[in-house]
Amino acid sequence: MTFTAVKPSDASPFGSPIHENSEAEVRALISKAQEQAHTLANLSPAKSAALLREIADAIESQRAALIESACAETALPEGRIGGEITRTTVQFKLFADLVETGRHLRVVIDKADANYSPAPRPDLRRQNQPLGVVAIFAASNFPLAFSVAGGDSASAIASGSAVVAKAHPSHPNTCAIIEGAVKSALTKSGLSTDLFAIVQGTNPQITHWLAGDPRIKAVGFTGSEAVGRILLDISAKREVPIPVYAEMGSLNPVFVTSAAIGERSEELAKGLVDSALLGSGQFCTKPGLIFIPDNQKEFLLQISAHLATLQVGPLLSSSIASRYGAAIASLAQAPKVQIFSAKATENGFGVTPTIFVTDWSTAQSTQGLLEEHFGPTTVVITAAEKDFVKIAGELQGQLTATIHGSASDSFTELLSILAQKAGRVIWNAFPTGVAVTEAMQHGGQWPASSTHTTSVGIDAIYRFMRPVSYQSFAQAVLPPALQDANPWKVEQRIN
Amino acid sequence: MTFTAVKPSDASPFGSPIHENSEAEVRALISKAQEQAHTLANLSPAKSAALLREIADAIESQRAALIESACAETALPEGRIGGEITRTTVQFKLFADLVETGRHLRVVIDKADANYSPAPRPDLRRQNQPLGVVAIFAASNFPLAFSVAGGDSASAIASGSAVVAKAHPSHPNTCAIIEGAVKSALTKSGLSTDLFAIVQGTNPQITHWLAGDPRIKAVGFTGSEAVGRILLDISAKREVPIPVYAEMGSLNPVFVTSAAIGERSEELAKGLVDSALLGSGQFCTKPGLIFIPDNQKEFLLQISAHLATLQVGPLLSSSIASRYGAAIASLAQAPKVQIFSAKATENGFGVTPTIFVTDWSTAQSTQGLLEEHFGPTTVVITAAEKDFVKIAGELQGQLTATIHGSASDSFTELLSILAQKAGRVIWNAFPTGVAVTEAMQHGGQWPASSTHTTSVGIDAIYRFMRPVSYQSFAQAVLPPALQDANPWKVEQRIN
Repeated sequence: MTFTAVKPSDASPFGSPIHENSEAEVRALISKAQEQAHTLANLSPAKSAALLREIADAIESQRAALIESACAETALPEGRIGGEITRTTVQFKLFADLVETGRHLRVVIDKADANYSPAPRPDLRRQNQPLGVVAIFAASNFPLAFSVAGGDSASAIASGSAVVAKAHPSHPNTCAIIEGAVKSALTKSGLSTDLFAIVQGTNPQITHWLAGDPRIKAVGFTGSEAVGRILLDISAKREVPIPVYAEMGSLNPVFVTSAAIGERSEELAKGLVDSALLGSGQFCTKPGLIFIPDNQKEFLLQISAHLATLQVGPLLSSSIASRYGAAIASLAQAPKVQIFSAKATENGFGVTPTIFVTDWSTAQSTQGLLEEHFGPTTVVITAAEKDFVKIAGELQGQLTATIHGSASDSFTELLSILAQKAGRVIWNAFPTGVAVTEAMQHGGQWPASSTHTTSVGIDAIYRFMRPVSYQSFAQAVLPPALQDANPWKVEQRIN
Repeated sequence: MTFTAVKPSDASPFGSPIHENSEAEVRALISKAQEQAHTLANLSPAKSAALLREIADAIESQRAALIESACAETALPEGRIGGEITRTTVQFKLFADLVETGRHLRVVIDKADANYSPAPRPDLRRQNQPLGVVAIFAASNFPLAFSVAGGDSASAIASGSAVVAKAHPSHPNTCAIIEGAVKSALTKSGLSTDLFAIVQGTNPQITHWLAGDPRIKAVGFTGSEAVGRILLDISAKREVPIPVYAEMGSLNPVFVTSAAIGERSEELAKGLVDSALLGSGQFCTKPGLIFIPDNQKEFLLQISAHLATLQVGPLLSSSIASRYGAAIASLAQAPKVQIFSAKATENGFGVTPTIFVTDWSTAQSTQGLLEEHFGPTTVVITAAEKDFVKIAGELQGQLTATIHGSASDSFTELLSILAQKAGRVIWNAFPTGVAVTEAMQHGGQWPASSTHTTSVGIDAIYRFMRPVSYQSFAQAVLPPALQDANPWKVEQRIN
């Protein structure tokens, strides 16, 4: 069995046929990864950091091939793909910097204390340990930064966990190049190439084989709520349930005040439309719901006028394009909903960016209007500004929530509610464009995320580790990070 | 509807009839807690610490009443109950000390950086925020330290989350005294008593009402694997799934080497039996599987001889006593299993401590021998010492795993496997007696725990918080802990 990549720009095939992995092959890859997992888990921080930097270098060395392949497989522009390659290597380097300090081990040493209350305490030392072999499901919309060696895999490898990654079938050749790069870095570092494997295929059973395998200890996933629920159900039915770190759909509501429109309506109209259409609207942080005050006809005209000048690249796959087309066609039939359109893209998986405008009660009663639609669309909702707080309280969980306002606005209550709904709240900026940094929180509340963790930023590493306490062991027997001599020079918190 | 507590010492009723809460009452308590939750969430670290210390003092002020009630309701000795009261108040004070520093907020401030790679980064500040209203299910075996205001509730309140706690029906009067104490501390602190509520009853539906209520944001539970699975299933079927922090059964395997027996056989035999019988064998960290090398007949005789001198207090409830009796009777029928007994306790829910001895293959093929049996029993398994590593690899997940050895033993491989199975590994000590301290990890691997978190020690607080990032907000609008001026003087990590 094979399958072939498709170019979104003209729907033609790209590259050689790709071998589709069988169940036996998937299980063999997991098995081999498990046999080698201890070698990765036991690396010193210095060697672990060196490996992560080798991976970054190996990916960088494939820049030209990656740009050629990823541009063809995604139809994303070269600048975007180049930026993603950089982000991918930066992610590995950030984890290298973290791992080198040993801070991610969160070492705590409680020395024995005969006078401790409520009872004498023994010598107790805790560190984080990697989980073992984890399954990563690559996203279609970040062919590098969230693909087989994207943020999920980088954080897993940095934790010391071996990775079996499911390549997204919309960019299989790009994934194969990355696989080669990571494996070459493992070899250079004196480690087995079995520690990182990718699985290719279009068969949905692959998801079940991977997530259901008893040797898999955690799942990292970025994608739709529907597939996220499937993964959670697989986990719940396992003999040993495992954590499923799913970051799923989000509407990323934006609340715009009258004062903000009064101050900078044109900049706002452009910024909102550009953010919604960025990457052809294929970002999980796309603003999918934009609340504006009633009676802002002029502002709507500015949105409409700016949109009309725009055109976007084709969507990532035929299935995304056809789901988008069907959703737009269905929403266009809804009564009391105004429609703004941009220029059509006719070739390949091209579509027409479309913005819907309606009021809150229509939005609530119109099927599909308050759901995420992947692609260049958003919904502008007009409402009384005094109702923003109430409306915010009625929203589901989100990855992000944004307020566009003026310094003169009073929005404490709105902000407090949005901070309960989302993982990241934003002031006078746009939710797309996610900084890969320590203070970043990408995961939000259900249905946007299945846990309270983050897949972006360095805290992503903690998803693949768990704390273990060592009680009363002799120094020589303790893991290096827990020893008083601290041979790895890791950060230790000593009580 | 009412129910009445029962004294395990003679099966007689204790105290007045207790009102059994209806569904409407449970939902009203959740509702009221939710209405007030923001007041707790927004307390300054200083006020939050003061509240936790008020609660500790209020519980301490009820010491005499608690001892009278808890001793009657559990038949545990006064010394144990007194120690538990102290542990309960110490837990609140430890959280007060933590909260005061603000360290639990895990504040990270990434200042805006136009030169940041791969892209300029905005001002991004992250802190932990409380989840809201959480449901705590009290354990039967710790009538204070893991009951309605035990470690779970203390960590939840410290996080800033409101608590609705299900009282265990085996010590309802003790729970009612604690409820009064916590509510009086809330009042003294100028807060609503609705922030802490307890629910009483024997109806198993209460579990569903609580864990299934959409306003409940997390569940803390200590108890059996069966009930843990029910709670996980309730969560998975909710419209919005929530984290279920369940710490469940564990066999807490102990591996004893020939060298250890050679050095200190009598001390070991006594220590193991005493640990298995401590608290009438009703600890989740009870050593339930003890592996000793073949041909240690003398050591088995020492175990048998020490056991024969002992007697334990009655079990906590008639259901625990009858499950224990049925399990012991059934295991006693198994072929190739040797039985050692202690003195019987005839009154009330009294039972006879019983130790089973068999080999590993018999243990594996005998139904029920490798399951947790709550009460004064354990299983001693004889095996070739060279097979310890292989056997350890075949064990399920555990809370703890222990090695009793000599400095001359080489056990690196065994330790490495046990550290993959358990949350706490122990050298030459006993798993019972859990230190309430920062380096403690109580939770282990499934089926001992549902997540990688801990319910004991100060890290328990992180179960009830989640990170939220604030992007580009003006200083005045930011939560106090994220402001440059740092009015709460919390620990801030600034990049």
